[in-house]
Amino acid sequence: METGKLLTDRVADEIVKNIIGKDLKAGDKLPNEFELASMLGVGRSTVREAIKTLVSRRVVEIRRGAGTFVSACSGVSEDPLGLQFLEDPIRVATDLLELRFVVEPRLATLAAARCTPEQLEELMQLCDACEKNMLAGNDFSQENTAFHAAIARASGNVVVPNLAVILCGSPSMLTATPSKQIREELARTHREIVTAIAARDGMAAYDAMLLHLAQCRRSIAEQALQ
Amino acid sequence: METGKLLTDRVADEIVKNIIGKDLKAGDKLPNEFELASMLGVGRSTVREAIKTLVSRRVVEIRRGAGTFVSACSGVSEDPLGLQFLEDPIRVATDLLELRFVVEPRLATLAAARCTPEQLEELMQLCDACEKNMLAGNDFSQENTAFHAAIARASGNVVVPNLAVILCGSPSMLTATPSKQIREELARTHREIVTAIAARDGMAAYDAMLLHLAQCRRSIAEQALQ
Repeated sequence: METGKLLTDRVADEIVKNIIGKDLKAGDKLPNEFELASMLGVGRSTVREAIKTLVSRRVVEIRRGAGTFVSACSGVSEDPLGLQFLEDPIRVATDLLELRFVVEPRLATLAAARCTPEQLEELMQLCDACEKNMLAGNDFSQENTAFHAAIARASGNVVVPNLAVILCGSPSMLTATPSKQIREELARTHREIVTAIAARDGMAAYDAMLLHLAQCRRSIAEQALQ
Repeated sequence: METGKLLTDRVADEIVKNIIGKDLKAGDKLPNEFELASMLGVGRSTVREAIKTLVSRRVVEIRRGAGTFVSACSGVSEDPLGLQFLEDPIRVATDLLELRFVVEPRLATLAAARCTPEQLEELMQLCDACEKNMLAGNDFSQENTAFHAAIARASGNVVVPNLAVILCGSPSMLTATPSKQIREELARTHREIVTAIAARDGMAAYDAMLLHLAQCRRSIAEQALQ
């Protein structure tokens, strides 16, 4: 084990290595406390502390009475960029969007080049689900985040999907429903993005995403005025 | 307090709110265990557990004998994107770089428009320190990460700096020293980036960063062949 760290942290690192080494996936069960203690040659209370650390890092989750399981969050922390420590919510929303302008059009282009038929099918379904809520004036944040995360996965880049969840999960302070005009534009540009990806037209996908983000910016401006 | 979470997590959230509410900065001291327990109306053992959670989320750090302090990591965990759960280290390095190609040239352009005189001074010093190690064939990873993080801060975007630390911290598996030719090119393109930012020339900063990243890609290719 690596030295210079607290024993609990070192044991947590060993458990992570074990998860990776045994190729355990989200939902797979870990050995119990007793087995882990004997495997790693430490006491059960140390194992318990290490598991708590891994729960807070969202690597594992405890299901009461059932055991400890690999978390579906794959170790992506709840607020990986520490955004809750930034002060002005409108500023955070604006700057997140500035970053999305940098990243997402290129991701749409990559998705047009690399997305699989299954990923395209998923994108179309998410686009439908999102559009339905957008046009009905319902909350669409969940479907919207899922749609943008699916484009990030379709980019084929293994790092980006974990990042996209952060970028596109709309900050919780901006939850007002946008005006009908903006909702219609958001739905239309979503559709254009999917059409361009389906046509394998990287440049059209880039442009449609740019247009979509410009609509998002208008939506934030609308809410900042309220 | 929010319900549906474990008491420890709720107390941890309250401590975070307290840090934000009192505008405590990195290095500032938190109230002691006893004071926190009485402030939050919970037992000291719960406070102790909550503090442990916040240590593992890198929100606070404990200095033995001195107390608990706000961490300089501002809640950015060690591996916030869960990259250690991705399997192929060369693939992770390649895809991180693909993302840097998307993000960093634009950050350099923003830095040219927005950086303050103090930030420029810092950039020049980091460029010097990094160049010295690059040309001497020493490890330059720390100065290099600091240089790229300083450009991200100079972009004026509040979200980006925490992201840059993830993007530019070279994955630990790629630690071999690049060849002399590549090290010289990396140093030269670093210098060109700073010169362009100093001249407030956003397009030249964009191009210099692109060239620099192309050199980084050659450096990774070199190591992948070894």
